[in-house]
Amino acid sequence: MSETNHQVRLAARPSGLPRATDWSLTTEEVPEPAEGQFTVAVSHLSVDPAMRGWMNAGASYVPAVEIGAVMRAGAVGRVTASAHPGFAVGDYVYGTFGVQEYAVSDGRGVIKIDTSLAGPSTYLGALGATGLTAYFGLLDTGRLKEGDTVVVSGAAGAVGSIAGQIAKVKGAGRVIGIAGGPDKCRALTEEFGFDAAIDYRAGNVRRALREHAPGGVDVYFDNVGGEILDDVLTCLARGARVVICGAISQYNETQVRGPANYLMLLIARASMTGMLVFDYVDQYPRAMAELGGWLRDGKIVSREHVVHGGVDAFPETLLMLFDGVNTGKMVLALDRR
Amino acid sequence: MSETNHQVRLAARPSGLPRATDWSLTTEEVPEPAEGQFTVAVSHLSVDPAMRGWMNAGASYVPAVEIGAVMRAGAVGRVTASAHPGFAVGDYVYGTFGVQEYAVSDGRGVIKIDTSLAGPSTYLGALGATGLTAYFGLLDTGRLKEGDTVVVSGAAGAVGSIAGQIAKVKGAGRVIGIAGGPDKCRALTEEFGFDAAIDYRAGNVRRALREHAPGGVDVYFDNVGGEILDDVLTCLARGARVVICGAISQYNETQVRGPANYLMLLIARASMTGMLVFDYVDQYPRAMAELGGWLRDGKIVSREHVVHGGVDAFPETLLMLFDGVNTGKMVLALDRR
Repeated sequence: MSETNHQVRLAARPSGLPRATDWSLTTEEVPEPAEGQFTVAVSHLSVDPAMRGWMNAGASYVPAVEIGAVMRAGAVGRVTASAHPGFAVGDYVYGTFGVQEYAVSDGRGVIKIDTSLAGPSTYLGALGATGLTAYFGLLDTGRLKEGDTVVVSGAAGAVGSIAGQIAKVKGAGRVIGIAGGPDKCRALTEEFGFDAAIDYRAGNVRRALREHAPGGVDVYFDNVGGEILDDVLTCLARGARVVICGAISQYNETQVRGPANYLMLLIARASMTGMLVFDYVDQYPRAMAELGGWLRDGKIVSREHVVHGGVDAFPETLLMLFDGVNTGKMVLALDRR
Repeated sequence: MSETNHQVRLAARPSGLPRATDWSLTTEEVPEPAEGQFTVAVSHLSVDPAMRGWMNAGASYVPAVEIGAVMRAGAVGRVTASAHPGFAVGDYVYGTFGVQEYAVSDGRGVIKIDTSLAGPSTYLGALGATGLTAYFGLLDTGRLKEGDTVVVSGAAGAVGSIAGQIAKVKGAGRVIGIAGGPDKCRALTEEFGFDAAIDYRAGNVRRALREHAPGGVDVYFDNVGGEILDDVLTCLARGARVVICGAISQYNETQVRGPANYLMLLIARASMTGMLVFDYVDQYPRAMAELGGWLRDGKIVSREHVVHGGVDAFPETLLMLFDGVNTGKMVLALDRR
């Protein structure tokens, strides 16, 4: 390991798709922990569509990343030095450590992880914010009931692939995933257990939905927004719940496309509700225990798309998300330092 | 009274704003009731924005009005002949009698009204579908809580003016109405008891909302859609409920404008829910009793904009709605036959 700490800092606020020049690479000494702090060597970075929003000016559900600040990122790593009574050298931890090789923390928002149960990157996937988002989005916001017909968009992605699996475990009648391309669609039915997959690149999503969900859609878990959201809105069952988890198709648009078919909410007496996983922090332990049990019993699988590189690989890794390269959770493993 | 029955029938499906030629005027003999039927002389027709949707092809929450059929309309009238054991000559009734002078009914969906409590037209306003829509939209779909900041659009209209008054009666902290023009805005604060009025024709709605609802909007009762919906979405409080009751700004558009700011639902963990009053039919008696009590006690007022004319005045009366002419419930009183 080097004694230097390479970091990716926000250099400019992008308009549209980010470019590599929107970040700068800096090098510092590895920070020493002060009293009540510890130092973490980051091993795996979570690479998420939401990062695009954090780059914009103005507060959203979290403050914007300041120009010159280390780019915000969830991450796992190992404690390498500690002056904190609750964390010892060797502990594996999850926290918002940022896109850098080493982080100093006072322990707030940091949880210890058990790498004997699952590998570190799984704590960014099924056992991390990703899995928890799917869990609470589907079960609380979406109020999934047994027998429901569920549609998930971005279904081969990090949250989508878990959401579809949770729906099956919890007794959904039929789970339909929407994804781009035959490989992802194959993963949906063969690996993640969806009942049907719709390739939005191949043809008419609305017609496919009518075929696969002739009785209408009870829960729609939306990760993409845009045209696909509008398509699903035309197929809602009475009393349907639309969960707004994300809108990856819109994050790089300078003008967001609103759902022109939103009046279908009235016709279907349906709801569209936004959710953020942070609101459920009190319930994380219960959800993680349940997700961990399903993972151990093989009822769900956590798939990660791991890119190996240094922190300098972060910009291109983030862009891969918007190109739809990944199946499962996009992770940057910092194992080439 | 004439012995003929003048009727307005749908002649063509409009694209955009309806024209007079989209209806035809027919004349028939006044129908005689068969066994189990009765005849109603219609006195007051309900003129509603939703009628525009009924003219389109394809089923919505109700079937489309067929070309050649009498235009659908809620109405009140008096029974003039009866072969039905439940309805006697002289009874005042509410039903979907259509835009015609006389209707024959078997009593399904017809309720008797007490004209000693309120005038017939009030049964199209505060004590009719209008008032019930405001009641259930605000209290059930909107889950109004004491102290909530409530915003109502189309606030000087039929449903909006009642919704704002119910919010006050039920303990909302602050009730803000959005309407077009100084006269309507004056009616909001002086007649309907809103705490503040925003004239969307006068300036920046978003800025005015920030001023009048600095803590954010808890319940937004939307009757208009379009730009105003987008403005309010930027001002939602955490956990806000947006009630989609209507979208008068969009009914004559060939391409509906979707709410581009819908991702504010995610940031605010808010919901947007469509409602239709028909779903609450079991609870109508309780709600009508409560609304009737408030009306009697002067806690709410029912304002009707009554146009006097024959059924041939229906097309122009409907268009007045889309011009925003009315304050309160638009009613066509058939007293010039």
